[in-house]
Amino acid sequence: MDDVRKLTEDYPWIQTPLVIGAPMRLIALADLAVEITKAGGIGFIGSGTDTDDLSIHLQSAQKLLENSPSSISSSTLPIGVGFINWGASLATALLAIEKYRPAAAWFFAPASISSLQTWAEGVRKASPETKIWVQIGSVKEAVDVVESVKPDVLVVQGTDAGGHGLAQGASLISLLPEVTDVVHNLARTQSITAPVVIAAGGIVEARGAAAALTLGASGVVMGTRFLASHEAVIPKGYRDEVLRANDGGQTTVRTKVYDHCRGTTGWTETHNGRGIVNKTHTDSVAGLCHEDNKKLYEEEVKKGDAGWGVEGRMTTYAGSAIGLIKEVKSAKDIVQEVREGAKDVLGRLNGAVVVGKL
Amino acid sequence: MDDVRKLTEDYPWIQTPLVIGAPMRLIALADLAVEITKAGGIGFIGSGTDTDDLSIHLQSAQKLLENSPSSISSSTLPIGVGFINWGASLATALLAIEKYRPAAAWFFAPASISSLQTWAEGVRKASPETKIWVQIGSVKEAVDVVESVKPDVLVVQGTDAGGHGLAQGASLISLLPEVTDVVHNLARTQSITAPVVIAAGGIVEARGAAAALTLGASGVVMGTRFLASHEAVIPKGYRDEVLRANDGGQTTVRTKVYDHCRGTTGWTETHNGRGIVNKTHTDSVAGLCHEDNKKLYEEEVKKGDAGWGVEGRMTTYAGSAIGLIKEVKSAKDIVQEVREGAKDVLGRLNGAVVVGKL
Repeated sequence: MDDVRKLTEDYPWIQTPLVIGAPMRLIALADLAVEITKAGGIGFIGSGTDTDDLSIHLQSAQKLLENSPSSISSSTLPIGVGFINWGASLATALLAIEKYRPAAAWFFAPASISSLQTWAEGVRKASPETKIWVQIGSVKEAVDVVESVKPDVLVVQGTDAGGHGLAQGASLISLLPEVTDVVHNLARTQSITAPVVIAAGGIVEARGAAAALTLGASGVVMGTRFLASHEAVIPKGYRDEVLRANDGGQTTVRTKVYDHCRGTTGWTETHNGRGIVNKTHTDSVAGLCHEDNKKLYEEEVKKGDAGWGVEGRMTTYAGSAIGLIKEVKSAKDIVQEVREGAKDVLGRLNGAVVVGKL
Repeated sequence: MDDVRKLTEDYPWIQTPLVIGAPMRLIALADLAVEITKAGGIGFIGSGTDTDDLSIHLQSAQKLLENSPSSISSSTLPIGVGFINWGASLATALLAIEKYRPAAAWFFAPASISSLQTWAEGVRKASPETKIWVQIGSVKEAVDVVESVKPDVLVVQGTDAGGHGLAQGASLISLLPEVTDVVHNLARTQSITAPVVIAAGGIVEARGAAAALTLGASGVVMGTRFLASHEAVIPKGYRDEVLRANDGGQTTVRTKVYDHCRGTTGWTETHNGRGIVNKTHTDSVAGLCHEDNKKLYEEEVKKGDAGWGVEGRMTTYAGSAIGLIKEVKSAKDIVQEVREGAKDVLGRLNGAVVVGKL
């Protein structure tokens, strides 16, 4: 619970339980990040591998936040920025961070742990109040990151997550308690301040959020849920697929084929992405070579929204909880529903326990 | 909460939140099943694909239960039996069920849905009080089973589970709420009594159990946790691996290679098993053919306990939460700790919510 106090000190505008918007590359930009923050969460801009436009997005966010209520005032710009570190430019990122001082910088998939240390040092120097968040997907990664980077926040990503993550992994139900135990033990034995632990992967609504809290998280990240928000920068064809797909354990899959088709070659062997199964994937499984698949993909791009769907070929990154998403809502409504809903779930269950009905 | 009332009616000896022992083939026999039941849970005997010994195991359980306290009295034999339906003999199973009238019969992996209907009809006729439990791993399976078999209990298995399950799937954090919603909607629209939903896969302690309850389960199944119980029938080499392994998302894997090496050829393409990575798996990934791998496996069997371990070859089925298991305990202690611990987790979190500290 100390972690929650730390969160409310570091991000004074938040309401708890904390809901966070994942830094989805090309999709989570100023509009989405700001609306999540204005609803009492923490919104992130997905800078990803490309830092060239980061200053523009931060400027937009700053402008959008100018007339916001005093309740979200902060000594930093009250949103975060997320990087895919193997491909992002540190120099460009630091210029933007120094100028706009976002509340948090979220690192993911570095080329090496030592490069992550360089990033952390750079950000801490450029903007001392910007907190360092690092996303991991295994206990080993958690230990390596906590020992070397000493992040403020550790984002624990389970394998149900949409988009990129570890190709092999466990879900939050086993990963999160183990990481929490190991990290707290490590902090105790090595006199490191334990990072705040935040959960990501498979959470799209109140029940998943409440589950993550019981597993030891001090807040929850959602990506896929915000794909179906008014503020996401997302083609209609993609968004329609998010609403349509059900039974995500069967209709989404972790694969590298979309990286191959899009020419995103920088990811290490350890990482791939979860997306909705379509022709690009089924043809690949049936034996179509990457080269031919890539050509078909490039043709499909020209179709626009019609390129998505089970018979389409376009990348449709989404998590396994996709079947729980039924309608497009405002980011504000999503944040509030998940936050208040998680409290209701916990209150209702505890009430049932107290009277012996659970 | 009505589901919990139904559970306490159907299994009058239980204490809630309900903890269930998975019907692990060859491992969960009379001793383990009875101790779980005596601790207020529901123990299952793992009959698996081989029903020949079922009567013997049920007789043992009956004997063990003879002098148990009146609190666990029941009109049925207060344990369940679990089948792997594609390989089990219905005729032999029914003889045992008719004679011993176990509280529940748990079905898993049938050759077809229609064969499952035959099993359900047979059991209901042989022992009307025996409840029908069916394990599923996807929303589609849940719908098919509820519509055709109308089970009393639906066991929803997430992909973190050890041993056999769907090769492709989601974890409980996304699968469980979606199945719960779909099944309740189905029951409402088709005037079917909705089954009680129970969660399996990745739960080994209180936090995972509490999470499953927030996700909509009325009880939790544990398998891997009971591998490290005094009552499990398990070689020392296997049990030592359960205690040793950590970071299960990385050190366990879903694979068919152990079925190949053991000659268990009856599983459909849709199913495989999660086990701790060892030479059998790494050699297979490196290109060793099944035939040669099988020969090496058969040699390894002769080593006894020394055949387990990272450098060993023996099958070590276990779930991704294996890193949270640190010591061998009695089944009784495990059941009580998880049950009371889950209540504590929910109470503590709700308390934090109430005072605004979560």
